[in-house]
Amino acid sequence: MSINSQDVISNSGIIINQDKELYSFNLDTILLYNFAKPAKKGKIVDLCAGNGAIGLSLAAKTKAPIYLVEIQKQLADLSQKSIAENHLEQQVYSINDDLKNIQKYIDHDTVDTVVCNPPYFKLGDKTVIKDNPVLAIARHELKANLTDILSTIKVVLKENSHAYLVYRPERLSELFSIMTQQRLQPKKMRFVRTTKSKDANLVLLDLIKTVKEASLKVEPDLVIYDDQHRLTKEASLIINGK
Amino acid sequence: MSINSQDVISNSGIIINQDKELYSFNLDTILLYNFAKPAKKGKIVDLCAGNGAIGLSLAAKTKAPIYLVEIQKQLADLSQKSIAENHLEQQVYSINDDLKNIQKYIDHDTVDTVVCNPPYFKLGDKTVIKDNPVLAIARHELKANLTDILSTIKVVLKENSHAYLVYRPERLSELFSIMTQQRLQPKKMRFVRTTKSKDANLVLLDLIKTVKEASLKVEPDLVIYDDQHRLTKEASLIINGK
Repeated sequence: MSINSQDVISNSGIIINQDKELYSFNLDTILLYNFAKPAKKGKIVDLCAGNGAIGLSLAAKTKAPIYLVEIQKQLADLSQKSIAENHLEQQVYSINDDLKNIQKYIDHDTVDTVVCNPPYFKLGDKTVIKDNPVLAIARHELKANLTDILSTIKVVLKENSHAYLVYRPERLSELFSIMTQQRLQPKKMRFVRTTKSKDANLVLLDLIKTVKEASLKVEPDLVIYDDQHRLTKEASLIINGK
Repeated sequence: MSINSQDVISNSGIIINQDKELYSFNLDTILLYNFAKPAKKGKIVDLCAGNGAIGLSLAAKTKAPIYLVEIQKQLADLSQKSIAENHLEQQVYSINDDLKNIQKYIDHDTVDTVVCNPPYFKLGDKTVIKDNPVLAIARHELKANLTDILSTIKVVLKENSHAYLVYRPERLSELFSIMTQQRLQPKKMRFVRTTKSKDANLVLLDLIKTVKEASLKVEPDLVIYDDQHRLTKEASLIINGK
């Protein structure tokens, strides 16, 4: 296993082992960690966990057991090492398997919170996998598509429990359509923009599993840079913890 | 027919006859008029046209024929009067019928632009219709629901042509799901907020009829008031024309 970086998200205090040649966490990860409100008790699942950056860091927010589900062995191995280094063996568990097999490990309707930073890109002519297959799987729907991911969230979540996602606005219509098919309803949504006059480049979603209709709140945008290209006060607090 | 007000949207120069006891246009109407980009040629349809405020005003933006479809006679009569007063008999036509009968008047796959400010509210225990049935029908899904409206848009629009909608963010997931069922894809979306730190209270949507997937752009928000509760520069330009 190659480790070439140890990083910490915001002010979580949890060390994340990374191999930047494979895949390392980025702004999306930090924003989703900050947006997610994990249950204080019960069971937490990080789907498409990668090197476990979000799920591990959530140990700073909750005492509940956290399961990291990641198909790629190199990334799951990194998260296993981080679990040990942070002495979180009694709280955080790495599951190195396809999320479609999740019921081997976790019963349906038993999870209190899911967090997920899924691959954003569909397979297509422009999908480049030859240079870095690990990164390609993390970014493109090579191993799991949106329906696979949302149906897994539906299966494991308890009724009325929350999942937190980060995604691309470009595919929001498809995301909502598949969510509806899976009885998942968005409750809160927050767009992220580089500056306030730019189109949104990310969306943060708080959704619940329910048979009822839900009313969506579109919260104030998170703007990363001000007009002088300085981090905004809120972005600085999220990214640098101050 | 009772007329107690004549108003003009932005700087369109088109007079709109209104009966404020029935229903009169509001900020939603003005915003949708400004957001819509009607085709220069072909055929324009204003669905759920009310007193015709948007469709009539679009005559300031295009020379194409404009059809106002409105189920309520009192409102269609007002738009008929406005058509005459603005000397638009050769461009704007009032159709006083249920939108479900639209194919009596307009062939399928022939329309270049649709604009629509639909009723926002589902029927429920809180639907109050006794005081003002005209307003109740304009606001609540008493005569047409979201599926009726979106399927009508799908039927009349040409392939790859645009529809412009104003709606409530609370029902965005349902809107996108039904749009997907009707082969309508959002292309651009803009949220409207009273101030930048408030949840969005309206959403403006530019959608197309297509069998392909479309990529959604979430444009910068339209903020109505600044921190001193003055109209922002952009809102003032849209609402007051300066």
